[in-house]
Amino acid sequence: MTDLRVNTPVQVDRDQLQRDFDALAELTEPGRPWTRRSFTPMFLKGREYLARRFGEEGLAVSIDASGNLLGRWTGTDVNAPVLMIGSHSDTVPSGGRFDGIAGILSGLAAIRALRLSGHQPARSIELVDFLAEEPSEWGLSCIGSRGMVGALGEDHFAMLGPDAERLDTAIARMGGEPSQIAASVRQDVGAFVEIHIEQGPVLEAEDISLGIVSGIAGIARVRLRLEGKAGHAGTVPMCMRADAGMALARLMLSLRGAAREEADKGRGHFTATIGVIKLEPNGANVVPGAAEAIVDIRAENDAAMDSYLAAVSDHATAAAAAEACRVAAVETLSKTRAVACDPRLQAIIGDAAKIHGLATRPLASGAGHDAAFVARIAPAAMIFVPSRGGISHAPEEWTDTESIARAADVLASTLATLDQRPLTQAA
Amino acid sequence: MTDLRVNTPVQVDRDQLQRDFDALAELTEPGRPWTRRSFTPMFLKGREYLARRFGEEGLAVSIDASGNLLGRWTGTDVNAPVLMIGSHSDTVPSGGRFDGIAGILSGLAAIRALRLSGHQPARSIELVDFLAEEPSEWGLSCIGSRGMVGALGEDHFAMLGPDAERLDTAIARMGGEPSQIAASVRQDVGAFVEIHIEQGPVLEAEDISLGIVSGIAGIARVRLRLEGKAGHAGTVPMCMRADAGMALARLMLSLRGAAREEADKGRGHFTATIGVIKLEPNGANVVPGAAEAIVDIRAENDAAMDSYLAAVSDHATAAAAAEACRVAAVETLSKTRAVACDPRLQAIIGDAAKIHGLATRPLASGAGHDAAFVARIAPAAMIFVPSRGGISHAPEEWTDTESIARAADVLASTLATLDQRPLTQAA
Repeated sequence: MTDLRVNTPVQVDRDQLQRDFDALAELTEPGRPWTRRSFTPMFLKGREYLARRFGEEGLAVSIDASGNLLGRWTGTDVNAPVLMIGSHSDTVPSGGRFDGIAGILSGLAAIRALRLSGHQPARSIELVDFLAEEPSEWGLSCIGSRGMVGALGEDHFAMLGPDAERLDTAIARMGGEPSQIAASVRQDVGAFVEIHIEQGPVLEAEDISLGIVSGIAGIARVRLRLEGKAGHAGTVPMCMRADAGMALARLMLSLRGAAREEADKGRGHFTATIGVIKLEPNGANVVPGAAEAIVDIRAENDAAMDSYLAAVSDHATAAAAAEACRVAAVETLSKTRAVACDPRLQAIIGDAAKIHGLATRPLASGAGHDAAFVARIAPAAMIFVPSRGGISHAPEEWTDTESIARAADVLASTLATLDQRPLTQAA
Repeated sequence: MTDLRVNTPVQVDRDQLQRDFDALAELTEPGRPWTRRSFTPMFLKGREYLARRFGEEGLAVSIDASGNLLGRWTGTDVNAPVLMIGSHSDTVPSGGRFDGIAGILSGLAAIRALRLSGHQPARSIELVDFLAEEPSEWGLSCIGSRGMVGALGEDHFAMLGPDAERLDTAIARMGGEPSQIAASVRQDVGAFVEIHIEQGPVLEAEDISLGIVSGIAGIARVRLRLEGKAGHAGTVPMCMRADAGMALARLMLSLRGAAREEADKGRGHFTATIGVIKLEPNGANVVPGAAEAIVDIRAENDAAMDSYLAAVSDHATAAAAAEACRVAAVETLSKTRAVACDPRLQAIIGDAAKIHGLATRPLASGAGHDAAFVARIAPAAMIFVPSRGGISHAPEEWTDTESIARAADVLASTLATLDQRPLTQAA
């Protein structure tokens, strides 16, 4: 068996990788590039392509109970914990060509490179296309990875999508077996590595090839409602107003200021965003009587999330009081905890990048990923590649094939290394 | 002829006034009080009631070319300039029982009181229900008063309402003669006085019976658009954002601060209101890439309006620059000049109020009114009565009948005074 770590780092096949990206880019809803929504005929066309390519690279193809597409390269030690890689092939509406796909095609490229180099793994390697990572028409994201780790249950199955189709029916339509999901939670995974586009501007701005993800941020959503007193824009004097819009403006700046402070503290990635606001009645000639906002908070550090969430009410109260308004609602709509990536896997990936002469930096993921669910059953890590302009979830999303190929090179080396390491120490 | 000014101030008939309010309140779209939209069958039912009541009080009823309902008490001197009073009987959707109606019914009450007191005017008195003062489905307000003063032309006639009906067709349907509007601009009006609810909180807050309107504010509407850079809420670090929502928040507070400063300068009523805002794409997980607002500016003093408008761009530029955004649009959508009320009429109304022992204060009108158009052909004045809670254009709109009756008392005395004064000095 060749030690790929030191003297002969493999290089993935750039041309084949490009062909795979080109082929999948063709599989989009016409006139609405690039759209391949989960559970649609176009999504199945994408999977048909992937299944064929998995087979061409020597992988045994199957679909698990949760509807995930798997390609397995069986190792010589069938009892050893499995090395799992992959991401998702579904997209948001009018999304891009790289979000999700990059993780599957780079995994396929890494497997191809290992195979062509004569590598014969002891541990089985599984390449996964997780079902429906993006928020689906059923109102749920990460459906396949939830199912794989036992986080998908009856409540989810009963969710209704287009034509009032139940989610379990839709999963079955994708080839899954919903009744077997609970019994088939994976317990044989030794490590998981997902390559994904950064979806942010940091790597490009710093001209760094790869981000080694330190953790996946927890996400909270808070709805805020401020109430003042609606009035005629012309007749209520400036000094007699309780303008809920002005209270909202104060609150926006106040919450942003607090987020900047937290981000500067150095206890991990932290963002707070107000992307949705609403005035009532939203008439040009009416002093707003009420204002609402949704705050999206992301924190790599759970303590940072908790202290920020605890302070939101105070910010709202102060902003409202300054405008003779009142806080009518501070409602936490959802909240997930942060997931730390496995330090040992991060170190192995970093070593592999060095072998390939690539600059890396630790980077938190502010977006949710399948890896956050897989981390519940195995040590997990992520490798980010640069996103041009930081843009994602849009047709303009772009990452050079060479950038993705470099990540695939590192993944191949990482898999070779992991094949020779004990994985029992991992959480 | 009795001199009503000094010894025997007339009192209007409170009971009859109440009956008239009650009767008109019944004439509303069922289930949607209080709605009597211009050009609708319900509006015509209201006019039917008014025409009957005008007749009962001895007035000669007619509809002019613009579709205004007129009730005329012909004076002994048919060549003397006419004293005109009135307001409008149409409402906004789900409006109140007083906006507009108060000016017609109080005028009718004043005429009744003068008549019952034995008064025989030298000058003819005309009571007007102006057509369609509120913004109509044709996208135009003050249709009847525009027509009366020669401010309604072919461009307006071609405007389309429900069922693609032309405005001139709709005016004809109300009994007007659009082809005669241009030729029938009134040149015989010696003074116009309109009683109206304040639609603001000042009189109630200061416990003052009547506002004597000093002027009707000019109104400008400005659309603002700020552009930054949309981004993923989780992946774009706080320090790398160009958040158009934050630029908007800064701009809102900055424009409001400037409006407060202007209002405090003492050069008349001044307001600026941001009642409409919009983020793009308005998604919880997206840093806003663009933000828009509409600023409504009202100024009794044209110089104040102009200096504020001139500064809007600077405020926008500063707010945008502070957030790494740019100003994409500063567009003046509409702009009207302020209209000063006639000082001599104001003084006569003030004297009449003193006779009735009523407290008054000068007050600007921040809302538009028919009086602003009639002021183009005659000295014009307005008397405001308190609005409970400052509320109008809503079902909760309320003014006590006694408050309106007091204004009608003052109007009766004012008419008696004006009947004996030369009106040639007026503009």
